[in-house]
Amino acid sequence: MSNVRPDKGYTRDSRYITTRITADGRDGFPVEPGRYRLVVSRACPWAHRATIVRRLLGLEKALPLAVAGPTHDKRSWTFDLDPDGRDPVLGIERLQEAYFARFPDYDRGITVPAIVEVPSGEVVTNDYAQMTLDLSLEWTAYHREGAPELYPAALRAEIDAVNEEIYTDVNNGVYRAGFAKSQEAYEEAYGALFDRLDRFSERLAGSRYLVGDTITEADIRLFTSLVRFDAVYHGHFKCNRQRLSDMPVLWAYARDLFQTPGFGDTVDFDHIKQHFYVVHSHINPSGIVPAGPDPSGWLEPHGREALGGRPFGDGTPPGPPSPDEAVPPLV
Amino acid sequence: MSNVRPDKGYTRDSRYITTRITADGRDGFPVEPGRYRLVVSRACPWAHRATIVRRLLGLEKALPLAVAGPTHDKRSWTFDLDPDGRDPVLGIERLQEAYFARFPDYDRGITVPAIVEVPSGEVVTNDYAQMTLDLSLEWTAYHREGAPELYPAALRAEIDAVNEEIYTDVNNGVYRAGFAKSQEAYEEAYGALFDRLDRFSERLAGSRYLVGDTITEADIRLFTSLVRFDAVYHGHFKCNRQRLSDMPVLWAYARDLFQTPGFGDTVDFDHIKQHFYVVHSHINPSGIVPAGPDPSGWLEPHGREALGGRPFGDGTPPGPPSPDEAVPPLV
Repeated sequence: MSNVRPDKGYTRDSRYITTRITADGRDGFPVEPGRYRLVVSRACPWAHRATIVRRLLGLEKALPLAVAGPTHDKRSWTFDLDPDGRDPVLGIERLQEAYFARFPDYDRGITVPAIVEVPSGEVVTNDYAQMTLDLSLEWTAYHREGAPELYPAALRAEIDAVNEEIYTDVNNGVYRAGFAKSQEAYEEAYGALFDRLDRFSERLAGSRYLVGDTITEADIRLFTSLVRFDAVYHGHFKCNRQRLSDMPVLWAYARDLFQTPGFGDTVDFDHIKQHFYVVHSHINPSGIVPAGPDPSGWLEPHGREALGGRPFGDGTPPGPPSPDEAVPPLV
Repeated sequence: MSNVRPDKGYTRDSRYITTRITADGRDGFPVEPGRYRLVVSRACPWAHRATIVRRLLGLEKALPLAVAGPTHDKRSWTFDLDPDGRDPVLGIERLQEAYFARFPDYDRGITVPAIVEVPSGEVVTNDYAQMTLDLSLEWTAYHREGAPELYPAALRAEIDAVNEEIYTDVNNGVYRAGFAKSQEAYEEAYGALFDRLDRFSERLAGSRYLVGDTITEADIRLFTSLVRFDAVYHGHFKCNRQRLSDMPVLWAYARDLFQTPGFGDTVDFDHIKQHFYVVHSHINPSGIVPAGPDPSGWLEPHGREALGGRPFGDGTPPGPPSPDEAVPPLV
């Protein structure tokens, strides 16, 4: 996703392209290896979910990745990291082109994550919430051996309920705080955010993961906000009651996930900081990117193994990322 | 002082009104109790020095205080905290009026601290650096019994050298970081700031105060920046390698001073946060004031007594502030 329209403030435009890529192809877009391209930015927390799920499930070959640069202009995310500034497969400079290829009059946000069909060059979906669930449930034929169940049927109701809390108060809550247009709106969002984090701290004090004893979609959705907390939300979005690193349970929980294959190896703090501080010129007019904080603490021991839990359930961790998808080392 | 002209960026206008109030009255303004009024804002770090020195020396009755509100417009600090928005003694709404009373064409910043002569209503000086030294050395006839020597002759060269480091890299360094107009300028100021803080941490690890074994002018000048560090400089000025509370020696040193009569009882965190976040609209356009961080840590034990030192030398601590000058309690 992201804030191609910062002037919108904190009311998120939640109308997405809801076409689905499914095993049965009922929307006209069947699951098929190599047919699609997952377009993300390493900076964007909403896209980050998809890169983690893709790694955990081993979908790298079936669903190749296009990585847009961390900053973008008013019009679009761009492929400025690629040679000649064009995605080498889609051949486009701006993600916008794939949106217009399908909807010439498209007037909503050009957001990541987006899945683009390679032969037609058309965007299929940018519905980030459904996208990761479909990677889990529709792309099963191409999951790696040992892929975990991130959205197991028996826990689905509980995951959905927790996801709703994560979305409202944390994932979107930090934006409601940071983009608030009044002191009251900011303080409401700030209060709801930290109340929720306090409750998650209690929940996670004796439980290694949010739901059940394995990593699920809920952990992924919370992680993508926690990993950005001290680097951007604390200062840039004024979420400064505490830093993540001042909340012992959540900080250990987040480090545990960070050090799990598929999580930390998808995090690019430089892209994250560049994006938020440069793109949100309405709250950071100078465009200056803070030099701190030091991220090396993410690699410190977390001690969460003592709580038990089976990170991948009956499955196994993914192998290392392929060299062309590796993020820069933390320190 | 302060930033009546935020567009100036980080090059501080250092041309002040250098008239001095002296025991011998050689500039036409002799020390005389009740003749002058010290105009400050609780928010402003440069004015804060003068309020601490005045408290430590017991000059409250000899040099009464006028407190301007934490925010101000482009033109001036204003007396919006007073009934009818006027200073009850000077009878003016804006500090600007005292500047214009003496210099009708005054075109530089209308800054605090300023000392205004009551009978004429004219500003005498706003030279904050000389002002506190003169309170120590020229106002001696009105010091309280037990007033400390804040600028003792034997240590003056060392204090001056340390003060220069404090000014360049810390007092003004945080502004150079926060008002930087380029990434390079920001990073230079950030590096110099934290290098200097690291060196002060080393210096203070085995020594209770910066120079000698008692509180001096140098400690006061460092304190006024440290006390604002986590509340404003860390986020607002992007000085975020660490917070003060992450630097154990400096944090204990700052708490020790905070808990010393004359220091913490002059700190108003609400005024401090209001000022920086509201007045600097060029770096915080929303004007929203962060709700955090929790300041209650300032009252935690510091353990610095173990280093020895005699806070007030052969003198004694000041008594509590008079009720009309009391700041709100911390928690």
